[in-house]
Amino acid sequence: MTQDKTLKELAEYLGGIVKGDESCTINGLAPLEAAGPDKITFLANPKYAAKVAETKAGAVLMAPGAESYGHNVIEVANPYLAFAKLLGLFYVQPHPPLGVMAGACTGENVSLGEGISVHPGVVIGNNVRIGDRCVLYPGVVAYDGVSIGNDTVLHANAVIRERCRIGNRCVIQPGAVIGSDGFGYAPDGRGYYPIPQIGIVVLEDDVEIGANSCIDRAALEVTLIKRGTKIDNLVQVAHNCQIGEDSMICSQVGISGSSKIGNHVTLTGQVGVAGHLTIGDNVMVGAKSGIPNSLAANAGYSGIPVQPHKEWLRSMAVVAKLPELKKSVSALEKRIIELEQQITKQ
Amino acid sequence: MTQDKTLKELAEYLGGIVKGDESCTINGLAPLEAAGPDKITFLANPKYAAKVAETKAGAVLMAPGAESYGHNVIEVANPYLAFAKLLGLFYVQPHPPLGVMAGACTGENVSLGEGISVHPGVVIGNNVRIGDRCVLYPGVVAYDGVSIGNDTVLHANAVIRERCRIGNRCVIQPGAVIGSDGFGYAPDGRGYYPIPQIGIVVLEDDVEIGANSCIDRAALEVTLIKRGTKIDNLVQVAHNCQIGEDSMICSQVGISGSSKIGNHVTLTGQVGVAGHLTIGDNVMVGAKSGIPNSLAANAGYSGIPVQPHKEWLRSMAVVAKLPELKKSVSALEKRIIELEQQITKQ
Amino acid sequence: MTQDKTLKELAEYLGGIVKGDESCTINGLAPLEAAGPDKITFLANPKYAAKVAETKAGAVLMAPGAESYGHNVIEVANPYLAFAKLLGLFYVQPHPPLGVMAGACTGENVSLGEGISVHPGVVIGNNVRIGDRCVLYPGVVAYDGVSIGNDTVLHANAVIRERCRIGNRCVIQPGAVIGSDGFGYAPDGRGYYPIPQIGIVVLEDDVEIGANSCIDRAALEVTLIKRGTKIDNLVQVAHNCQIGEDSMICSQVGISGSSKIGNHVTLTGQVGVAGHLTIGDNVMVGAKSGIPNSLAANAGYSGIPVQPHKEWLRSMAVVAKLPELKKSVSALEKRIIELEQQITKQ
Repeated sequence: MTQDKTLKELAEYLGGIVKGDESCTINGLAPLEAAGPDKITFLANPKYAAKVAETKAGAVLMAPGAESYGHNVIEVANPYLAFAKLLGLFYVQPHPPLGVMAGACTGENVSLGEGISVHPGVVIGNNVRIGDRCVLYPGVVAYDGVSIGNDTVLHANAVIRERCRIGNRCVIQPGAVIGSDGFGYAPDGRGYYPIPQIGIVVLEDDVEIGANSCIDRAALEVTLIKRGTKIDNLVQVAHNCQIGEDSMICSQVGISGSSKIGNHVTLTGQVGVAGHLTIGDNVMVGAKSGIPNSLAANAGYSGIPVQPHKEWLRSMAVVAKLPELKKSVSALEKRIIELEQQITKQ
Repeated sequence: MTQDKTLKELAEYLGGIVKGDESCTINGLAPLEAAGPDKITFLANPKYAAKVAETKAGAVLMAPGAESYGHNVIEVANPYLAFAKLLGLFYVQPHPPLGVMAGACTGENVSLGEGISVHPGVVIGNNVRIGDRCVLYPGVVAYDGVSIGNDTVLHANAVIRERCRIGNRCVIQPGAVIGSDGFGYAPDGRGYYPIPQIGIVVLEDDVEIGANSCIDRAALEVTLIKRGTKIDNLVQVAHNCQIGEDSMICSQVGISGSSKIGNHVTLTGQVGVAGHLTIGDNVMVGAKSGIPNSLAANAGYSGIPVQPHKEWLRSMAVVAKLPELKKSVSALEKRIIELEQQITKQ
Repeated sequence: MTQDKTLKELAEYLGGIVKGDESCTINGLAPLEAAGPDKITFLANPKYAAKVAETKAGAVLMAPGAESYGHNVIEVANPYLAFAKLLGLFYVQPHPPLGVMAGACTGENVSLGEGISVHPGVVIGNNVRIGDRCVLYPGVVAYDGVSIGNDTVLHANAVIRERCRIGNRCVIQPGAVIGSDGFGYAPDGRGYYPIPQIGIVVLEDDVEIGANSCIDRAALEVTLIKRGTKIDNLVQVAHNCQIGEDSMICSQVGISGSSKIGNHVTLTGQVGVAGHLTIGDNVMVGAKSGIPNSLAANAGYSGIPVQPHKEWLRSMAVVAKLPELKKSVSALEKRIIELEQQITKQ
C-alpha cells in the first residue's frame, strides 16, 4: 500500500516549505532512529533535536528554525500534526463506497447519501437519514428517526437509539451506545418506577466516541456533546449532560446526570463527576479523581474529593508518611508530659 | 404524537382528585416555568412552591394541602411519580407487535409468546422461551435454553447466554451481556486453567440492566438479581453474586464474586465491592468508595476503604489540610525544644 | 447430560492415583456437604479437612497424605485443578461443528479451518483466516485481514478489527472489542486532529478477554497480550500496551497507552495504570489503586497513588483516625502554651 511522493508534493499537502531537494521521493514515515532514505521522519520534541544529526531519513518534518544538520527538511508550524496528516496520506486507504450490501436491512422512508457503505448485518430503522460517504460496519443498529451527517463512520455493533442525531465527520468505535435510556426512577413507596426518557442525544461535528462507551439520552430534552470533543472507551455520560467543544474525556470516566463540562476540558482516566455540577473551560483533572462540586475554569485538580492539583500533591506526600506523623505526635506528647512534670516540681 | 386528555381522565388514570375544572383539556407536560395552558406541570419539591403562583400551566400535579394559587389541580400522594406516569401516557407510543421480522433467525423448539416483536438481525438459539409482548431489537442474541418472561424489552445487541432466565417487565439496554463466563481459574503451577462456569444468571421481575453492563453466570449455581433492582450502564456483577430487591446500582460499579447485596441498597457511581462479603439492607454507599469488608444494614458509608459516611467526611476535611497539620506539628516541636532548653537552664 | 465414570477412568484422566474402590462409579461433582454417593467432591483448602469425615460423597479428590476417613480417594497434586478438569468432563458438552450456518456472511479470500461453527449473524470480512474447531457465535464481526488460530471461541457480538491476530485456544466473551482505534490526537491549535492508528492487536495463545472489554490497536505497531493472560470484563487496554504471560487483569482495570505489564502480574478490580510505565513480574496491586509510576517486580502495592501494600495499610489506619490526630495536636498546642506561660512567669 506504499506510494511515492516528492517533498514538493508533501509540502503542498501540508502547507509547509521545503528546505533542500524538492524532488526527493518518500514512500512512508518512520521514527528518527529507524527511518531510511525513502522515509520522512519528524522532530516534534526539542529534547530529541540532537538525534536529527544521526537520522538516515530522506527528509525531516520540523518547525522553522530547527537545526537541519544538512538534511532535506519540510518546515511546518506543527510537526506532530504534520506527522499525523502524513500517516493518513501514506497508510490509510480510502474506504471504497460499497453501497447497501446484501445482508443489510433498511426500514421505510430511509434517506441514504451518496458514496456510502452499509455492511451486512446493519439494521436501519424507519425514517432514518444517513449523509454522504458514511460507513456503517456490520452489526450497526440505527433505530427509527436517527439522523447522521456526512463522512461519519459507525464501527461494528455500535447502536444509535431512536431520534438521536450525529453530526459530520464523527467516528463511533465498536459497541458504543448512543441514546440508551437515562437512569431515572421515581420512588413509589416500595421500589422504583421508571421515568420515561423521552429526550435524545446530539453529537455535533467531529465528535468521536470510544468502544463500548455509553451516552444516555436526556429525560426530556438533549444530552449534548459539542463539536470536536473526543471520548475514549468505556466512558459513561449520563442523561441531560452537556460537554463543550474540543474536550478530551479519557477512558472509564463517568459523568453523572445533568452536569455541564466546559470547552477544552481534559478529564483523565477513571475520573468520576457527580451530578448537577459545572466544570469550567480549560480545566484539567488528574486520573481517578472524584468531583463532588463545581470546578472553576482554567485550573488543574486532583483527588477524592478533588483539591487544586498542587495542594493534592502536597496532601498525598503527607498521607504516605502519616504513620511517621502519628509517631511524631506521640513523641511530642511524651516530651510535653515530661516538661509538665519538671515544671510542677520546680 | 400529542393527544388531548381532560383532567378528569388524568385523575382517574393517576388515582388522584381534581380540584378545579374537570373538563380542562391537557396535551402534555412541561416544567413550572415553561408550561402553557394546554400543559400540566408538577410540584414535587416544596422548595419551588412559590413558583406555582406564576405558572401559566393549565393544571398542576401536587400533594394534598399544597397551595394552588387558584390553578386547576390534580391532588396525588406522590406528584413526581404521577409526573413519570403522565410522561409515559403522553409521550411513549406503544410498540406495535411486528412478529418475527424478515432477517431474524430462530432455532429449534422455540416458544414465542403473543404480540411480540423480533427485529431483523436477532438470533434466537434452540429451546428458547420468549413470553408475551416482548420486544427484541436488532442484533439481540439469545443462546440455547434462554427463558424470557412477559413484557420484557431487550435492546439492540444485548446478549443473553445459555440457559439464563429473565423475568417479566425487565428492560435490558443495548450491548448488555447477561451470563458471560465468570472469571474463575485454577492455578496449575505455570498459569491459569479456566474453571468451567456451568451456572446461570437469573433476573427476577422488573429488573433493569444498563447499556454494556455485564452480569457473569455463576460457577455452579446462580448469579441472582432480585425483583425490582435497577442496574445502570457499564456495571460489573461477578459470578455467584446476589443482589436483593429494589436496589440501585449506579454506573461503573464493580461487584466481585460471591458477594451478597441486600434490599434497598444504593451503590453510587464507580463503587467497588470486594468478593465474598455481605452488604446489609438499606445501605447507601458514596461514589468511588471501596468496600473491603461486610457492611451493617441501615447506614451510609464512604471512602477507600469505606468508613461510616460522617467519619469519612471528617477524615477528608483533615486530608485536605494535612500539609498544615504537618507544619503545626513541626512548629510544636520547635517550641518544645525551646521549652526543654529553658527548663534545663533554670 | 450426566454420564457414569469409574474412579479408575477419572484417575487416568487426571493423572492421579485411586486409593479405595477403583470400580466405584461417579456421575458428577458436588461440594463436601452436598455430595451423595454418586458424586465426587474435593478437598483443596486444608481448613476444611475435618469436613471430609462427614461427607457422603462416593469419592474425594485430595492431595497425597491427606486423611481420607475411609472414603474412596483420588490422590492428585492439585485437587482444585482436578476439580476444574472434572467440571469440564462432566458438565461441558462439546460444541458440535455446525459449519457456516445460514445467515452468516463471509467475504472474499476467506480461509476457514475444519470443524468450525459460524453462527447466523456473523460477518467475516475479506482475507480472513480462521483456524480449526473455532466457534463464532451470532453477531461476531471479523474485519478484513483478521487471523484467528485453532480452538478459539468468539462469543456473541465480539468485534475483531482489521488485521488483528488472535492465537489458539483463546476465548473472547460477548461484546469485547479487539483493535478499536487508540485514543491519539495531535493538538492543531484549535482542537484535536485524529492520529491514524495503523497498528494492530496481537493476542497470543490461551488469552481470554472478558465481556465488553476493549483492547485498542497500536498507533504504529502492536498492542500485545502474551500467552495465558486472562482479562476480565469491562477492562480498558490502551494503544501500544504490552501485557506479559499468565497475568490476571481483573474487572474495570484501565491501562493507559504504551505501558508494559510483566509476567504473572495481578491487577485487581478498578486499578488504574498511567501511561508509558513498566510494572515488573509477579507484582500484585490492590483494588482501586492508581499507579502513576513504574513498579519494581515481586512486590505488592496499594493506594492512590500506590505505596508498598503494608505501608498503605498503615497509612489508611491513620487516615481513618485523622480527626482524632488533629485533636491531639490541638490539645498538645494548648498544653505547650500553658507551659510557655508558666516558664515565662518563673
